[in-house]
Amino acid sequence: MPDSTTSDVTFHAAPRFPRGFRCASRNVGLKPSARDLTLFASEVDAAAAAVFTRNHFPGAPVVLGRETVPPGVGGTLRAIIANSKVSNVATGAAGVANARRMAAAAAAELGTSPDRVLVSSTGVIGVPLPIEKIERGVVGMQGDLQDDPLVGAEGIMTTDTHPKALSASVGGATITWVAKGSGMIEPNMATMLAYIFTDAAFDAPTLDRLLRAAVAPSFNMLSVDTDTSTSDTCAILANGLAGAVSEADFLAVLRAGCTRMTETLARDGEGAEHLLRVTVRGARDDREARVVAKSIVNSPLVKTMVHGADPNVGRLLMAVGKCFDCTIRPAATDAWINGVQVVQRGERLAFDDAVVRETLSREVVEIEVALGVGDATAVAYGCDLTKGYVEENAAYYSS
Amino acid sequence: MPDSTTSDVTFHAAPRFPRGFRCASRNVGLKPSARDLTLFASEVDAAAAAVFTRNHFPGAPVVLGRETVPPGVGGTLRAIIANSKVSNVATGAAGVANARRMAAAAAAELGTSPDRVLVSSTGVIGVPLPIEKIERGVVGMQGDLQDDPLVGAEGIMTTDTHPKALSASVGGATITWVAKGSGMIEPNMATMLAYIFTDAAFDAPTLDRLLRAAVAPSFNMLSVDTDTSTSDTCAILANGLAGAVSEADFLAVLRAGCTRMTETLARDGEGAEHLLRVTVRGARDDREARVVAKSIVNSPLVKTMVHGADPNVGRLLMAVGKCFDCTIRPAATDAWINGVQVVQRGERLAFDDAVVRETLSREVVEIEVALGVGDATAVAYGCDLTKGYVEENAAYYSS
Repeated sequence: MPDSTTSDVTFHAAPRFPRGFRCASRNVGLKPSARDLTLFASEVDAAAAAVFTRNHFPGAPVVLGRETVPPGVGGTLRAIIANSKVSNVATGAAGVANARRMAAAAAAELGTSPDRVLVSSTGVIGVPLPIEKIERGVVGMQGDLQDDPLVGAEGIMTTDTHPKALSASVGGATITWVAKGSGMIEPNMATMLAYIFTDAAFDAPTLDRLLRAAVAPSFNMLSVDTDTSTSDTCAILANGLAGAVSEADFLAVLRAGCTRMTETLARDGEGAEHLLRVTVRGARDDREARVVAKSIVNSPLVKTMVHGADPNVGRLLMAVGKCFDCTIRPAATDAWINGVQVVQRGERLAFDDAVVRETLSREVVEIEVALGVGDATAVAYGCDLTKGYVEENAAYYSS
Repeated sequence: MPDSTTSDVTFHAAPRFPRGFRCASRNVGLKPSARDLTLFASEVDAAAAAVFTRNHFPGAPVVLGRETVPPGVGGTLRAIIANSKVSNVATGAAGVANARRMAAAAAAELGTSPDRVLVSSTGVIGVPLPIEKIERGVVGMQGDLQDDPLVGAEGIMTTDTHPKALSASVGGATITWVAKGSGMIEPNMATMLAYIFTDAAFDAPTLDRLLRAAVAPSFNMLSVDTDTSTSDTCAILANGLAGAVSEADFLAVLRAGCTRMTETLARDGEGAEHLLRVTVRGARDDREARVVAKSIVNSPLVKTMVHGADPNVGRLLMAVGKCFDCTIRPAATDAWINGVQVVQRGERLAFDDAVVRETLSREVVEIEVALGVGDATAVAYGCDLTKGYVEENAAYYSS
């Protein structure tokens, strides 16, 4: 686990659920043997909010999810049902009907109504959802519900190398994050699949506002490969069993956990061997800070430089300089890699190659760029580009 | 050589120069043994125009080039001197002084003035230019000048796998293109290094206008890796020795050659095994057509799909759909790969996987997307993403 930038928040050594939340996962035959169906359930109704992909081809579960938990308004949820292997995207009206059947199946199993169930699917685009396998498979899952969030995290994995969950306390309440990532990741308004559970009490519109405030600097600054998934969903459920907590404290912990989870997703990007954290300071405004940070974290030549620990730091200037519509003053631009200054006033410093090579070989590579034209800052998260990424994605459909 | 979309223009079987142009190239010690210094010369003054990178960190030769051949105005040239291995970028005032010395050295060798010489450098960013080696090396090159453009093309190669030159006739005149590409290629207003020579007679402002009209749909629609070089330069020299030719005929051939050269650069992108040609039709306007075509050609997941001949065609919809600010109607969107329809009305067709696998394995992969919302069309050019790209760029500085 990389160092977190959010060291003021202590995450639990082993992730656990807030009061009233449990989960289960199973293999129902979508994959040969790995878990492919997951159920998260709250024992009481929970206020809920969600943000979804901005891709113009949203998957059927996203179309349905916008009904169930309207963005900007929020809603009420008792459960989330999610499958991996098939994303139910580009499947037309039949796909939406299948997503509705999936919600109904989970509702029947848990004794609630379909409009209290959020549906997610992740995997290959354009393949019909094997809905009968899911309907048959969900039967009896209520009896499997248990307390370890990692069991649910395992069921939503695609090419992730490990299940991802974490939790932290705030006041008398707990917040728990469960997510999956890996590839096709440059979320916009949300990330691949990220579910957040809390027993703190908030109404849905407040949750919606807090979720957006937490997602903007975290999941929305993550990019594994510039490709925005058609399934991105980030939802938060608050069942209120722990009562009220301070909104400011809650938001601080919510942001810290979203940031930590963002770093975890970046580090486990497809084929990734390094977490790349890019901080841009001194930008003219927030938009320009974000654009420059994303340009660096997305540059294939910066990503391969990190992969090869090759001190080819002029590529940082290339990636800053291709932000055509940003205010860039070459003579004001400085850059550091893990604290080692490599660019001063727009020129490459005559540094010791061996020192930069060593620092580029660390698991966490922190790139800082100071633009010297204003006060805005942004941080973007990504990973290196490796042969493993090419290998996984040259045969994702066929394998 | 891939099929050209510009089959109405016949290119010469072996490239040759227009009247009055010759070139030479040598090893002067920047590389261990390969040719690394090139001189192109016209025996008389030539009207000239050039477009340069929009990167905010232009190399010293680009800074000087904008003086020598002001964009929008054009100028007069007798020669181009270009070195490979070191790009003279991020080298400050010393870099610009070295670029001036390079122009002066070429001018002295050819008996012209430094303001008649365009300078280019390509290679690693941020390393001082070994100017003494160039000054010593250029002495006597006038005696090497000869008639084969490929000799000049060889001297400007970096990771290109072969030298690139072509020529065609228009009226009584000839146009000759010499270029290099490979990586850090998503030109904006120009391409890596592309030189165009003609013996047709045009004044500089006309040449400037014709060059921009030819570059916009060709080099500016090329992307190997989304990274915009700090050295991009495309220049045209017209020495008038063949007299006047029809401007419309000239522009048609100029465009055809720029497009053919663009395809050649894409096919020889770093690590590339396929030329990817993406046509978007039915867009709302030209800007949206270009944005969608570039989104597809730049998507790592589309590029790896082509690399692996994996019929994961839902990724095409993902890449269209992530153009957030474009007019996309899922139900109006169709797509074809080499003429095989794979998407109809926003849904993946139930095609024969083997057929799509076979067509994706061809050297030229033509992707067509019809958006069904307007009349605008754009074509973008790129290549697949391979382990070879990662390998070359993880050690470009060190190797």
